[in-house]
Amino acid sequence: MSGVRALGELGLIQRIRAAPGVSCAAGVAVGIGDDTAVLEVTPSAVLLATTDLLVEDVHFRRATATAREIGWKALAVNMSDIAAMGGTPRWALVALALPASAEVEEVDEFYAGLREAAAPHGVIVVGGDTSASTAGWVVNVTLLGEHRGTPRLRSMGRSGDAVAVTGTLGGAAAGLAALEAGGAEALSRMTTEALEEITRAHRRPNARVAEGRFLADVGAVHALMDCSDGLSTDLGHICRESGLAARIEVDRLPVSPAVHEAARALGRDPVAWATGGGEDYELLLTCDPAAAADLAAGLAAATGTRLTVIGELASGAPGIAWVGARGEPIAVVAGYEHFRG
Amino acid sequence: MSGVRALGELGLIQRIRAAPGVSCAAGVAVGIGDDTAVLEVTPSAVLLATTDLLVEDVHFRRATATAREIGWKALAVNMSDIAAMGGTPRWALVALALPASAEVEEVDEFYAGLREAAAPHGVIVVGGDTSASTAGWVVNVTLLGEHRGTPRLRSMGRSGDAVAVTGTLGGAAAGLAALEAGGAEALSRMTTEALEEITRAHRRPNARVAEGRFLADVGAVHALMDCSDGLSTDLGHICRESGLAARIEVDRLPVSPAVHEAARALGRDPVAWATGGGEDYELLLTCDPAAAADLAAGLAAATGTRLTVIGELASGAPGIAWVGARGEPIAVVAGYEHFRG
Repeated sequence: MSGVRALGELGLIQRIRAAPGVSCAAGVAVGIGDDTAVLEVTPSAVLLATTDLLVEDVHFRRATATAREIGWKALAVNMSDIAAMGGTPRWALVALALPASAEVEEVDEFYAGLREAAAPHGVIVVGGDTSASTAGWVVNVTLLGEHRGTPRLRSMGRSGDAVAVTGTLGGAAAGLAALEAGGAEALSRMTTEALEEITRAHRRPNARVAEGRFLADVGAVHALMDCSDGLSTDLGHICRESGLAARIEVDRLPVSPAVHEAARALGRDPVAWATGGGEDYELLLTCDPAAAADLAAGLAAATGTRLTVIGELASGAPGIAWVGARGEPIAVVAGYEHFRG
Repeated sequence: MSGVRALGELGLIQRIRAAPGVSCAAGVAVGIGDDTAVLEVTPSAVLLATTDLLVEDVHFRRATATAREIGWKALAVNMSDIAAMGGTPRWALVALALPASAEVEEVDEFYAGLREAAAPHGVIVVGGDTSASTAGWVVNVTLLGEHRGTPRLRSMGRSGDAVAVTGTLGGAAAGLAALEAGGAEALSRMTTEALEEITRAHRRPNARVAEGRFLADVGAVHALMDCSDGLSTDLGHICRESGLAARIEVDRLPVSPAVHEAARALGRDPVAWATGGGEDYELLLTCDPAAAADLAAGLAAATGTRLTVIGELASGAPGIAWVGARGEPIAVVAGYEHFRG
């Protein structure tokens, strides 16, 4: 192991620049190493741009996340935002601030994880910034993407729309709870497969890029966003931006057997993980209810990903009514909000 | 004063979104408030992208920088990178992590400073991220710009080129030294005007955007970059990327009377500030020596900014020879490098 202090900033930049998959590629006229990246946007495409700042001990803990996992997740959460517009992720700018005690091998691992997440989608690191930090690891990824059609916004929900979600919810929160429980005896009651599924959901979320592109091509899909802060918070955005109320049937929330297993083992509520846990990076959408079944079949055929209708939008004050099978109100846990934690 | 804890993340985002100058404008199809910004790049332009991460107590100290100054500088340093390519800055993504104890008014001040730097250049804040921090203020600005011609790279220097720099060097380092000296008796020997000039150079650097656009339009200009880490480090980049040696006449370095005054008052070396201090955000270029005088006259006429030839490029191992008036070697202070700080 060797410290970044010995390598210095220039040595570190040269090392990042020389790594595979971090170089010139389609659309990249100038990559890492000049004052700015120079990029060629596809004619007739609009540019999508998103940024996420991750701070040690707020967004991740070094005790439960390796440098490789931090790199993966830093890119994946931004790809999820591009996916939520129905776009194609293309170019990343990666800023990293490190304590002088950081090891060069950890930096290599961080970039290796980031490239692992990037490579299947053809995303290239075109620039960034490296600096010292007095405050643990700080990571900022800005991701640029393209869209050749009409990006789907949170404000596009219509009264009468079905509300649907890809994949399953609550896995990331269950995985975090399992990691925080550490070697707790309760976890020994879980199968290895279930434990692996939920910890992976927390550590290595998959952005639904192909799903987003498929969904944004279907006219029956109206509002579209990603589920990053918890269904409660995220659907709240669609309600507010669309000026509509939502009614969600709690029994229809797609929760995997592994999450139920973790909830039993840890004595926790799986519905709370699904509605308030966040970080699932599934896509949340509203669509013409008559088209929902065809949409789900088409999405499954194109991407292998399940789509589950969980409720509907209606006229009314923006907000979410959570109901049981007989329409009775159910209290659920709110999503995550920074500063209120 | 009220804390961000009381306002919460959503309240903070609504507040940022509602501020003047942070909204939809030319080329912005979707600004703050959806999963990504949606931007319309000018047909036939290439896209420029740069990012800078600023961490409290590494890049700034709250004792010597107000929130307004941090906001100004966070944008200005990125505009300087766009200027160094000869481009036009257009859209900013601003990520801010704050301790829960931060005051809402400080956040307002940060964005006000950022807008003050942005407005004269028509730069619009189109997105960002807000989160909690366990580690003081953390700011990341990603700036996107456009260029319709050929961006000027660090690698474009040619043997025989004159090396020239806009404005003056050493002001920002002198200003930082004065601020760190606090109320030292030595500063009382400086005029108010000189003290104000150097502290402003440190706190509110001006990106040389108009100068960059002018220079990149002149065919005689070859390599171009901004001077952010100190002349020694930055010219070193041009030497290495162009595969050439530089010879700089120390007596020709443009150092303002205020910097000389501060150096006398504090017992410091003005040349060390000019060569190693960094953060001047002037433009550093190489050009056809026969065109240098016309270039300087043209730049002064177009922008009011002075251009000073300080030396030349020649074949040889990449590196800088600093020489006196009679060609004798002079030892100078190296520029800034993170981790080695």
